[in-house]
Amino acid sequence: MSQNHVPDQMTTVVLESYSGVAALRVEQRSVPKPGRSEVLIKIAASPINPSDLSFIEGLYNMRQPAPVIPGLEGSGTVVASGGGFRANYLLAKAVACTASARGNGVWAEYMLCGVDSAFPLNKSLSLEQGAMSIVNPLTALALISIAKSSGHKTIIHTAAASTLGLMLNRLARKEGIEVINIVRRMEQVDFLKEQGAELILNSSEAHFADSLQEICQRKHARLAFDAVSGAMTGQLLEAMPSKSKVTVYGGLSGEALMAHPGQLITQNKKIEGFWLSPWLARQSMLKKIHIWRKAQKLVSSDLRSAVRARYPLEDIKKAVMDYQNQMTGGKVLIVPN
Amino acid sequence: MSQNHVPDQMTTVVLESYSGVAALRVEQRSVPKPGRSEVLIKIAASPINPSDLSFIEGLYNMRQPAPVIPGLEGSGTVVASGGGFRANYLLAKAVACTASARGNGVWAEYMLCGVDSAFPLNKSLSLEQGAMSIVNPLTALALISIAKSSGHKTIIHTAAASTLGLMLNRLARKEGIEVINIVRRMEQVDFLKEQGAELILNSSEAHFADSLQEICQRKHARLAFDAVSGAMTGQLLEAMPSKSKVTVYGGLSGEALMAHPGQLITQNKKIEGFWLSPWLARQSMLKKIHIWRKAQKLVSSDLRSAVRARYPLEDIKKAVMDYQNQMTGGKVLIVPN
Repeated sequence: MSQNHVPDQMTTVVLESYSGVAALRVEQRSVPKPGRSEVLIKIAASPINPSDLSFIEGLYNMRQPAPVIPGLEGSGTVVASGGGFRANYLLAKAVACTASARGNGVWAEYMLCGVDSAFPLNKSLSLEQGAMSIVNPLTALALISIAKSSGHKTIIHTAAASTLGLMLNRLARKEGIEVINIVRRMEQVDFLKEQGAELILNSSEAHFADSLQEICQRKHARLAFDAVSGAMTGQLLEAMPSKSKVTVYGGLSGEALMAHPGQLITQNKKIEGFWLSPWLARQSMLKKIHIWRKAQKLVSSDLRSAVRARYPLEDIKKAVMDYQNQMTGGKVLIVPN
Repeated sequence: MSQNHVPDQMTTVVLESYSGVAALRVEQRSVPKPGRSEVLIKIAASPINPSDLSFIEGLYNMRQPAPVIPGLEGSGTVVASGGGFRANYLLAKAVACTASARGNGVWAEYMLCGVDSAFPLNKSLSLEQGAMSIVNPLTALALISIAKSSGHKTIIHTAAASTLGLMLNRLARKEGIEVINIVRRMEQVDFLKEQGAELILNSSEAHFADSLQEICQRKHARLAFDAVSGAMTGQLLEAMPSKSKVTVYGGLSGEALMAHPGQLITQNKKIEGFWLSPWLARQSMLKKIHIWRKAQKLVSSDLRSAVRARYPLEDIKKAVMDYQNQMTGGKVLIVPN
């Protein structure tokens, strides 16, 4: 094993139980030692994503027993290799990385990472940009790929003022796909307009259901990507023409999705889910490489993320609450010292 | 036009608005005259099906403006033809018939029927058996066909003590498919046992969720046919292994279906709908003929319906309320005098 200026102890965030932000603690732990085909990454930065909130609440059904270090994606520098060609190749490189389904996460000074979950960054990218180059960019590319492959000219997106929402709008514009953006506050309507979005609906307005139905029927919008769930899923189904599909990829409302059975029975509509990692796993190796390269290439343009706040590990509760209170207007980053 | 001992006036049930049993009236109306490729049927009998209840409540989204004559299937004798080869061929024949999406229904002394919605009965069948030879028998055959074509060895069925539930059990046994029957009362468990069903769960029992999960995992049950909706849909999804599907075909709970978004996202599960008429429309002509012949052949055995009460048109409210109060133990028939 090659090891390089690595201390014995590190600061980490620990989730004591899958019960939300109150269960987050800051702890000192031993820095783990990489085994074969593993590397140790000195973490530079990690964004808080909606999937992190779901993870903390235990809604993502990860089945890793708590206590666990959260944090699903980030970036850093490889400081140790446990041996093997690919691990040794990564040594000293700047990488983006994701937490494995059964391992610890990124919200720590160091993370152990299998070689399949560490991706060398384009030299043109900063570590901070690289920290946000996986979850949102690949999700945006995946959703557009899904829409294109089934011939949709219009898609609907909820929680549309999110970082992912902005990425979707930029990608869709280039592909000739229209996005019906659904947000829940007037200032988000204004914000999306400034960003060049054209079709924007505010779900808090009185005539939202009618407006949604009108635009869905007029644009023949038969595919919705829903990050909200709860009553929104049923509203989408109801508004869209027959043979439509709602693809749920998040549960920001914190509620079970609700839908009228008649919509499924007599209108031939469907509700499915989308999750990035199994979607990627189903793609061919060529497609995976293509999508990763595209993400890296566009991370500083169409797939860029704005940052609105940076917090050290010690302020993890403050950071998560800040993000919970305002999930739009730029990412909240965790930055180990 | 050939017409045969047909009076000018008839007794009909009329639904004043799509607002449930209170909106049902009995009226005298003119007997309609068949146009080309239409026949007039003197109705012999019509069952009340769950889909009739949904229709009356306006949950089936039929878009026929009320007032309308309800009743979705029945049987009778063709007493007049409006001309055309097929209509003339049907004259004087005993037929099973369905209401068209835009026409009036079966709960009347006479019904106008397009030649595509009237099916000559096997000579071995009584008119009463023939009245129940379409909706439930074809649905049972369709659901088994769906299960077989996607290779399922086990299916789950809710509201399983229904007439359809009994048909499903009998058909499935012959096809080597196991049925996990979900009912909500202890006497329905006993009833299904008497009928030879082996896997029966009572959703009113305290450990229902655990028992359901245990049996679904053990039997690798990945396809559920759900007539109930509401919370049941989500319970089914949660209990089944990953990559499962709930196919909703009814909303007996009267509630929106509810499901945890995490089940769709991380478990790759789906919720779809089933409706008989578009399903039939999607089948090849050969398959349609095959399924119709099979239904006719089995209507007196595996696809038989028990009858527990008969009501004249005049007692329509009593009949519907009787059925609403007890949807198992045999069909309630409407029998014009």
